[in-house]
Amino acid sequence: MATDAFFDALVEHGLIIPDGVAGVFGRGAVFEEVLARFDDYICRGASHDDAQECQFPPVIDRRILDRVDYLESFPHLCGSVHSFFGDARQAEALAERSRKRQSWGELLAETRVVLTPAACYPLYPTLAGTLPASGRLVKLVGWVYRHEPSDEPTRMQSFRVREFIRVGTPEQALTWRDMWRVRGEALLADLALPTTSDVASDPFFGRGGKFMAASQREQKAKFEFLIPVISREQPTAVGSVNLHMDHFGGAFAIRTEDGAVAHSACVGFGLERCVMALFRCHGFRPDEWPAGVRRRLWPG
Amino acid sequence: MATDAFFDALVEHGLIIPDGVAGVFGRGAVFEEVLARFDDYICRGASHDDAQECQFPPVIDRRILDRVDYLESFPHLCGSVHSFFGDARQAEALAERSRKRQSWGELLAETRVVLTPAACYPLYPTLAGTLPASGRLVKLVGWVYRHEPSDEPTRMQSFRVREFIRVGTPEQALTWRDMWRVRGEALLADLALPTTSDVASDPFFGRGGKFMAASQREQKAKFEFLIPVISREQPTAVGSVNLHMDHFGGAFAIRTEDGAVAHSACVGFGLERCVMALFRCHGFRPDEWPAGVRRRLWPG
Repeated sequence: MATDAFFDALVEHGLIIPDGVAGVFGRGAVFEEVLARFDDYICRGASHDDAQECQFPPVIDRRILDRVDYLESFPHLCGSVHSFFGDARQAEALAERSRKRQSWGELLAETRVVLTPAACYPLYPTLAGTLPASGRLVKLVGWVYRHEPSDEPTRMQSFRVREFIRVGTPEQALTWRDMWRVRGEALLADLALPTTSDVASDPFFGRGGKFMAASQREQKAKFEFLIPVISREQPTAVGSVNLHMDHFGGAFAIRTEDGAVAHSACVGFGLERCVMALFRCHGFRPDEWPAGVRRRLWPG
Repeated sequence: MATDAFFDALVEHGLIIPDGVAGVFGRGAVFEEVLARFDDYICRGASHDDAQECQFPPVIDRRILDRVDYLESFPHLCGSVHSFFGDARQAEALAERSRKRQSWGELLAETRVVLTPAACYPLYPTLAGTLPASGRLVKLVGWVYRHEPSDEPTRMQSFRVREFIRVGTPEQALTWRDMWRVRGEALLADLALPTTSDVASDPFFGRGGKFMAASQREQKAKFEFLIPVISREQPTAVGSVNLHMDHFGGAFAIRTEDGAVAHSACVGFGLERCVMALFRCHGFRPDEWPAGVRRRLWPG
């Protein structure tokens, strides 16, 4: 199914609601119901892990991106929040530009916040210090932002990610990552989604980025869960497991009990993409989905 | 209880998690549980209205703010999203600034999106055209942004609002608004929260803003639900009912069946503020709250 056809079908069935900008749209009631059920299904699959829950807003301290060198890797994806700090005269100039549908650009200045590009970023600063011997395991869901406007419905500027994050010794992080590689693929496959997984790399910026991507692949630091949504040849990454090594532990002074820099890993499910995969594979009417899939999403 | 003392008490009980910037913090598991139960309680209170559900991301088309003249009224609160559109050389300059913890400012340019300052803004463009005779009633919850950094815990830069929105004839909007003035206050009072309601005005910018605020008060276009959280003398607005007249109908070409410009009204509950009011009034441990309050929030 072509990109446009899938987008149009989602609109036609009331699942998404176009709203003016590429990669930004509303979600209808049925879409949201499926998303809530899918998220609950994933959380039930991980419930015995006894992760600690928390929630962060979609904006974070700008300094967090500085500390993890985000702009070295993904300047083109950042979402920096700017506002107006001027006086009455400048305010009038700004309103005039708005009336004329012109750029507001240079009449604004940066605030102390940015949109978070990954749901787990705000967590790490809160873990600064020494971890308990068993490390930490946290779950959260958050809206993330990537500046990559596209008419392809799975490529959104703003979307939700369900994440689980493990922080501890190198072995704790690695073992947990390996467990989720298997579990994540199995959870998706149990919904009759034709899932594969593969080594992957992040979309690093520019020529230097090609090197960083190759290095990430070589270290097998990122695996993606892939399901055909838009194309059979280029299946969509609906989730990923990531081994960060000491990237966040070092940036935010997180240490293990023995004083070493903590390692971390995370698994994330792009909730809108997972929901779109369900619609793509099982049809646009959840009441007509296979009984086994319905039972798993709507148990009891 | 002083601002600082209440903030510290929320932190001490694991309800909120400081994260570097004023007005931006994490929410702990108990805070989130209460927030979900409160939201469900409000929705149950409105369930017979049969509102249509939808969901929008925290960013919206910049043109929406242009069309409603947002910058005339609230330039100081806006959150405009900027990103990087440059080449490799400029990217290096940007990364260098980030390494030095300097402003990224003028190396970025505005994107097509802004943070939504009210949860209902993205809805109106989707209603363009002619409404059914019964009008429309929609419910949604969303993260909103206001650039007003503060250490006062109820004054957040980013928070969630549960909204119900009525669009139709002037009489439909007015009747519904009047119904929610009573219902909203009763729902809060039924949780043993010492609620009052009063005419209010939005925080318009500058000297011209004083006139707009006076006019809004005179028209009784905004009523707030007020509960003492930080101070007895200046109770906190935990929600509001707003009559927009033809403001959004006119901006987005929404018409009633007879061809007239549609009127609209909304009611919004600041979910974090409502949760803080519960902790302030009933203590920091929900398992010790009055039985009647617990029964309403955790029924069955």
